[in-house]
Amino acid sequence: MEPSLTTLRDALRQFAAERDWDRFHTPKNLAAALSVEAAELLEHFQWLTEDESRALPPGTKAEVATELADVLLYLVRLADQLGIDLHAAATAKIAANERKYPADQVRGSARKYNR
Amino acid sequence: MEPSLTTLRDALRQFAAERDWDRFHTPKNLAAALSVEAAELLEHFQWLTEDESRALPPGTKAEVATELADVLLYLVRLADQLGIDLHAAATAKIAANERKYPADQVRGSARKYNR
Amino acid sequence: MEPSLTTLRDALRQFAAERDWDRFHTPKNLAAALSVEAAELLEHFQWLTEDESRALPPGTKAEVATELADVLLYLVRLADQLGIDLHAAATAKIAANERKYPADQVRGSARKYNR
Amino acid sequence: MEPSLTTLRDALRQFAAERDWDRFHTPKNLAAALSVEAAELLEHFQWLTEDESRALPPGTKAEVATELADVLLYLVRLADQLGIDLHAAATAKIAANERKYPADQVRGSARKYNR
Repeated sequence: MEPSLTTLRDALRQFAAERDWDRFHTPKNLAAALSVEAAELLEHFQWLTEDESRALPPGTKAEVATELADVLLYLVRLADQLGIDLHAAATAKIAANERKYPADQVRGSARKYNR
Repeated sequence: MEPSLTTLRDALRQFAAERDWDRFHTPKNLAAALSVEAAELLEHFQWLTEDESRALPPGTKAEVATELADVLLYLVRLADQLGIDLHAAATAKIAANERKYPADQVRGSARKYNR
Repeated sequence: MEPSLTTLRDALRQFAAERDWDRFHTPKNLAAALSVEAAELLEHFQWLTEDESRALPPGTKAEVATELADVLLYLVRLADQLGIDLHAAATAKIAANERKYPADQVRGSARKYNR
Repeated sequence: MEPSLTTLRDALRQFAAERDWDRFHTPKNLAAALSVEAAELLEHFQWLTEDESRALPPGTKAEVATELADVLLYLVRLADQLGIDLHAAATAKIAANERKYPADQVRGSARKYNR
């Protein structure tokens, strides 16, 4: 199975359909749930130093992987409910960022990060 | 180009390398940035009714698509910095949810949602 | 004891000092912790309808009260670490909002909410 | 005017009543708005080092003060809509934390932070 967002989208569609959960999955609710999952992810890092965050113990790393998955699944589900092509949006955003932050101008200066 | 998470991961690696931005992209910082982007997404929905959230005006939908992209890009970047296979984690989580919420038991009862 | 923000601020100062926890309470970390607590609060509401959110069962209401407290405590602590007068900032913001949204112009039109 | 949460609560009640905005201020919506404001606060800190976060430039500090105010105002409003005494909840939580983290046992060990 090719590891694509389409595969995940279809699996989530079937999952919700089998449980009759589409009615809970309004964009408003999914956006809230996504935000909550992102915070659960952040919780693992909130008291760590930046260096510590680069070297998680294996148990924490496994928990973080599950939180990352939760964020992705709500993200894919929300995009699907809105009829938005998530991969196309992401590709367009990378292209926009490349125009906004030209490598030869921002390299080493970290302009974005020193506002 | 196959629309895969691997493609996005590689594009983001190159983007950060060309700008020397890896040093800002610690997992702690990326987790915070991801949470901030998820909230910017939620902001579009916070005063809407659930029905309104299903029928966004085109302008809002385009803005929401960009916010979805921002969340995905930080998510892919964070998983990469942590050495986590995002697609594998998501697939494992779907399988875990299927075991946790058997369709024949939760269908129509919405057990999860009436805690 | 007068129920003031000053009272809470002083209690939190003493609490952190007695445990030598000031070093963890950097503004960056406290801002992350505040955001995490706000999401834990939101989690209670994410699948509820707006009407349901107005009529929480007593057990949920007690849990929500604790989450509200967590948000307030991190907020007071963060303001203190930054040397910001929280009550003065809030009073100034109410005044700014009164100028931004004149009652006679926005009444019934909900301009803010129909962007 | 004594700087109390009660003063802020009453000012916000009047503000909403004068604009007929109570109908937007359901607990579900206010919890989402609170979470969004907390993230806007976090955004100021996301790329800073912990040391940098302790020494904000004056302009940033003023912006942060406004974000702190936004969080407090939504928090006070949400507690009011739910009929929760915010100050009492915060005082109870401090007492609970004192029991949970006895100073003589956690001092210097930072047990909470080294899970």
